[in-house]
Amino acid sequence: MAPKAKRTKRPRRAERVNGAGTLLIIGGREEKRGEMRILRDVAERVRRGRLVVTTVATEHPEEVWHEYHRLFKHLGVANVDHLDIDQRSDGFSDEHIRMIDRASGVFFTGGDQLRITAKMGGAPICEAMRGLLNRGGVIAGTSAGASVMSETMLVAGVSDASHRIDAVKMAPGLGFISGVLIDQHFAERGRLGRLVGSVAQNPRLLGIGIDENTSIAVSDSHFTVAGAGAVYVVDAMRESDTNISEQEAEHTMSIFDLRLHILADGDSFDLQQRRPKRG
Amino acid sequence: MAPKAKRTKRPRRAERVNGAGTLLIIGGREEKRGEMRILRDVAERVRRGRLVVTTVATEHPEEVWHEYHRLFKHLGVANVDHLDIDQRSDGFSDEHIRMIDRASGVFFTGGDQLRITAKMGGAPICEAMRGLLNRGGVIAGTSAGASVMSETMLVAGVSDASHRIDAVKMAPGLGFISGVLIDQHFAERGRLGRLVGSVAQNPRLLGIGIDENTSIAVSDSHFTVAGAGAVYVVDAMRESDTNISEQEAEHTMSIFDLRLHILADGDSFDLQQRRPKRG
Repeated sequence: MAPKAKRTKRPRRAERVNGAGTLLIIGGREEKRGEMRILRDVAERVRRGRLVVTTVATEHPEEVWHEYHRLFKHLGVANVDHLDIDQRSDGFSDEHIRMIDRASGVFFTGGDQLRITAKMGGAPICEAMRGLLNRGGVIAGTSAGASVMSETMLVAGVSDASHRIDAVKMAPGLGFISGVLIDQHFAERGRLGRLVGSVAQNPRLLGIGIDENTSIAVSDSHFTVAGAGAVYVVDAMRESDTNISEQEAEHTMSIFDLRLHILADGDSFDLQQRRPKRG
Repeated sequence: MAPKAKRTKRPRRAERVNGAGTLLIIGGREEKRGEMRILRDVAERVRRGRLVVTTVATEHPEEVWHEYHRLFKHLGVANVDHLDIDQRSDGFSDEHIRMIDRASGVFFTGGDQLRITAKMGGAPICEAMRGLLNRGGVIAGTSAGASVMSETMLVAGVSDASHRIDAVKMAPGLGFISGVLIDQHFAERGRLGRLVGSVAQNPRLLGIGIDENTSIAVSDSHFTVAGAGAVYVVDAMRESDTNISEQEAEHTMSIFDLRLHILADGDSFDLQQRRPKRG
């Protein structure tokens, strides 16, 4: 056993979640009736604690809040609070920070990822969320709420098309996890092209594409897949070879020797070793 | 130079086109005004010879014939003939077989691939087409006309979704090329899932997904990409590992360690060595 025993605790690469908590990253359109496996997972992780639903991503915060409030109460969460951040000063308010400080979990709804980062990026409320992770809490996010989890996030890029070199937009995310780039509604919107196009720009990042009604639960440097769809991992680290820096922007990207893993319910992935494992 | 000199002429695997001719396999929706790069390529390969346009795939043969007739005349093809096969006996008619015998090229329009194979599979007209390839001619096909080129073809499977194990339908194709499985409208319809799902069933086949307005020209055991989009090559030969034979049919497929190449205009691919080359 000795040779395979654990090494130093420091990860070889940066792909790990801050702290001891769990990130639950959802590819959008999670089931909202019947089994509700993904939302039930969020609810069960929070148990008798408080769950904060943040609707900062959406233009319809009240509507979205009412729906998730109803669902999470139905799923047995004792206390569900609403955090809306309408202006940047809301991310500095003691009342809001206290809301996070006493929570066991935060749930980011969908909408527009730039609304999330523009309104709360760098604000003390983000530090409070990092604190939540450090004490073993859960941060969940669906759709836009999934994309913001990483250091760098995908903001825009055509779906259902191959990647043109200038076609993707990235921006700094909330940084709860580094070393990865997350895309959502993945197979449903044909987003392989834009994820590959992003990863090609810097293969340090591992591309993770999550289908609808599907999640990954990340803790420390592993994740596990749950739900109906698949999770695509695009790894350009070792052998890939691309024309992305040589060609004009409107040219279609060419990239060879990508490694692609398609994971389904129960499969897991080691982000440090970049290796999948069947569930 | 000696060590890399040619080996025996016999390919190590089956991926090669019959005969000395060229297959021009088009991902659908090739440009029909302006530069018309893909159709111009067909026209230039036929030069002063005869091009036979076959509309067997479509339910609107006259309409489709008139459009392509106009386009190929515009592009300078001296003689353009129409081959419609309405019933199986048409594939046995001497008149039709003579039409192929004197042609330099055949162009299969889009429609439904099963119409093509059900109406002409195994008929003498297919042998005549094989003869055309053997004497160095061109067989081109777009969309459904692209899919039928291979020994086994993809017939149906959901687009914009990850692959469920029972979700793909394959059928025997016309067999002008073996060892590959071709899909079209590839990025545009989000078809990675179904192509990977097909290749996983037998990694002997190399999966080739062709975007719209994009083609591959295959001769002997190489192909070259032309056009606006990308060509995806899915290789599960060496390291891949899947649950496809173990799981229930409605389960989402999981497959690890696929090799994925995304080729753009000018790139080429060696089907025997399974290696891409930048253009």
